[in-house]
Amino acid sequence: MTIYEIITKKKHNVELSTEEINWVVAGYVSGSIPDYQMSALLMAICFCSLSDRETTDLTMAMARSGDMIKPETGGFNVDKHSTGGVGDKTTLIVAPIVAACGVCVPKMSGRGLGHTGGTIDKLESIPGFKTEISFEKFVENVKKAGLAVAGQTGSLVPADKKIYALRNATATVDSIPLICSSIMSKKLATGADGIVLDVKVGDGAFMKTYEDAEKLADAMVRVGKLAGRKCVAVITDMEKPLGRAVGNSLEVIEAIEALKGNAPDDLLEVSLVLATEMLYVAGKGSTEDCRKMAEEAVSSGKALAKLSEMIQLQGGNPEVINDYTFFAQPKRSKEIFASEDGFVTGISCEKTGLISLKLGAGRETKESDIDFTAGIIFDKTVGDKVSKGERIATLYTSTKCDIDAIAEDFAKVFTYTATENPCPEKIVKKVIKGY
Amino acid sequence: MTIYEIITKKKHNVELSTEEINWVVAGYVSGSIPDYQMSALLMAICFCSLSDRETTDLTMAMARSGDMIKPETGGFNVDKHSTGGVGDKTTLIVAPIVAACGVCVPKMSGRGLGHTGGTIDKLESIPGFKTEISFEKFVENVKKAGLAVAGQTGSLVPADKKIYALRNATATVDSIPLICSSIMSKKLATGADGIVLDVKVGDGAFMKTYEDAEKLADAMVRVGKLAGRKCVAVITDMEKPLGRAVGNSLEVIEAIEALKGNAPDDLLEVSLVLATEMLYVAGKGSTEDCRKMAEEAVSSGKALAKLSEMIQLQGGNPEVINDYTFFAQPKRSKEIFASEDGFVTGISCEKTGLISLKLGAGRETKESDIDFTAGIIFDKTVGDKVSKGERIATLYTSTKCDIDAIAEDFAKVFTYTATENPCPEKIVKKVIKGY
Repeated sequence: MTIYEIITKKKHNVELSTEEINWVVAGYVSGSIPDYQMSALLMAICFCSLSDRETTDLTMAMARSGDMIKPETGGFNVDKHSTGGVGDKTTLIVAPIVAACGVCVPKMSGRGLGHTGGTIDKLESIPGFKTEISFEKFVENVKKAGLAVAGQTGSLVPADKKIYALRNATATVDSIPLICSSIMSKKLATGADGIVLDVKVGDGAFMKTYEDAEKLADAMVRVGKLAGRKCVAVITDMEKPLGRAVGNSLEVIEAIEALKGNAPDDLLEVSLVLATEMLYVAGKGSTEDCRKMAEEAVSSGKALAKLSEMIQLQGGNPEVINDYTFFAQPKRSKEIFASEDGFVTGISCEKTGLISLKLGAGRETKESDIDFTAGIIFDKTVGDKVSKGERIATLYTSTKCDIDAIAEDFAKVFTYTATENPCPEKIVKKVIKGY
Repeated sequence: MTIYEIITKKKHNVELSTEEINWVVAGYVSGSIPDYQMSALLMAICFCSLSDRETTDLTMAMARSGDMIKPETGGFNVDKHSTGGVGDKTTLIVAPIVAACGVCVPKMSGRGLGHTGGTIDKLESIPGFKTEISFEKFVENVKKAGLAVAGQTGSLVPADKKIYALRNATATVDSIPLICSSIMSKKLATGADGIVLDVKVGDGAFMKTYEDAEKLADAMVRVGKLAGRKCVAVITDMEKPLGRAVGNSLEVIEAIEALKGNAPDDLLEVSLVLATEMLYVAGKGSTEDCRKMAEEAVSSGKALAKLSEMIQLQGGNPEVINDYTFFAQPKRSKEIFASEDGFVTGISCEKTGLISLKLGAGRETKESDIDFTAGIIFDKTVGDKVSKGERIATLYTSTKCDIDAIAEDFAKVFTYTATENPCPEKIVKKVIKGY
């Protein structure tokens, strides 16, 4: 077996064997296969794709490249993953809902680069909240409260770290089996019994077309099934930011509000569907029953109580739930006003993300610091009527950025129509149950 | 301009600009573009190919990556290149013919890996012959005798050296625009005014199908034309070894015999067509006139005299022409006899090459030593009638190889039919004139 032969096979669209895939992943992680051969193979995969069997083999080989952990919580563990979008704070809402319904949510999350921090960055905007906790403490917290959110440890899925970095440097990111194996290897390595995947589609998502999103969702559900996990994928809209808040503490506040029953419609619906499916994979009943349970967890205040319990167990100040002034406060803000009369036809996710990054809410490089206070609150969303001069959004920051210049750029985020009320995209597009 | 953007463009089958191609070649040679990004780009090129304009730009950028030399011989310089085959000693025949007709042939040649050495290895089997001569001496010899054959200097086309090594490690060799740019960049860098390309097709050639050979021939002729050179490609058969000798001194002896008028038909025809086209690109008249000149150069003995002159000028013993015992003699030989009655339907080039390598005639690695005496003489060729027990070939070697085991393997080289006389492939399949 040589890497040259394996590249040649894949280049000629021949299926690779399980042994060949295991050998490539092990060889690349150990360094016996150099980057330049791996990148040639990855590019050939971009053109020739991988079969379901190959994708599952690759995913499993990657998962096994490091520690395979299994949080022994005594119950069914359910995990949730989003392919990423602007304003996506659903983990902060669904994890407490699901835990309140008696299902364990041991959630390992990344920091990531981008327009805002990842889930653990957002949680760290809560004064005192610690995400760097030991695995034992993590499991103990899940046993106590039903949920915990912690940073990933260094020894999980080294193959994904190395392959992803190479893909990112060689324009081989946009291959559905490679995306699938990257996401699913991490889910499989962290030992979830059930996995709910939120596949975002649209301007602000990695998958720009519904067709690609569906392919990725299908691939992940199939791999999950082949790997013996209960798996559901939900395809949700990302043509506009989710909810009204983009930022770190701003999104935590919106999540708290959602658990108090005050969520914007789109955020509420995505959160309830995800929570419903998480309960469904955990065997809590029919989809209808699970939906009712999720709704009741919010209306009864039990989900909010779970969030409070988690904050306390991870060293945070649970008072933030009742008094948002416990969060660090932004030093500066700037209101944005509508430039014309009409209806909002679109809010560009891509432009919103860039503005958010410029305000300091995200990281441009791994070393960048995040401004937890920075971000955007939207007053208007797609479909809303606006009058010229009416406030449509407010920008927040504590960094030294040029907020006036950013506000000028913000003009391009909204698009309007003078005549008729546009209908926003359906927020949940499809639910794919993998078993 | 970033390499990431350029890989992405090519991956999406978008034409790269001249500036982008120049930037990539310069960046890869300087080391600012790492191997793993270049190999991803090369793999994308394998799938999406390059336009004529991109191929020409790549070829020119590669040619300019090192020294661009121009042998100032005072005349029109014509070069010849073969894509490589088994038993291909045509350079040793056509260069003296063309020089005898008054056209300069300053030939720079490589050593190469494979079943036998390259042209310069073959010449070094002549006692005293030196191929490592200075450029000044090389040009001086061409001025005196009309021809010289020397090794390439280290500073010629470094981009090709680096890219070829990477292609060889990443299964990105079989792309026609990449093959074309590799060959033509070297031809352009060595300053030939006219170039005749011998594109081999068949079992023993790099191009296995006529379709691919024609594509490569067309591509090279177009690039040559766009680069302002007079260029002709000849597509010739490589379904069986060319001529009757495979080896180093064995092939030199066969070339000397050819210049004495004793060439096997296939070798004679390929050599005369190549010589004709070299004279044609040099403006020596119509194809018919050039053919006559080439034939006369052989029959008059002028071509043989040119070879003798070249040998003398490069320090070799010209007596080898009259007395082959001046060559080192093989220590061992082994006759091979027909295993059945019938007609020869095929002589496998691939298997012949392997046998030749095992006998010691070629190099497995850059560091291997060549046994100049090793090789094969065929008594029978495709179409010949044979009787069981009749000698069909003789193996020669001076190495410690297991000649009996090799002789057993040799049984698979020939294929027979009992019934009818098979017709060998037409040796010259097409001549493509690029202007």
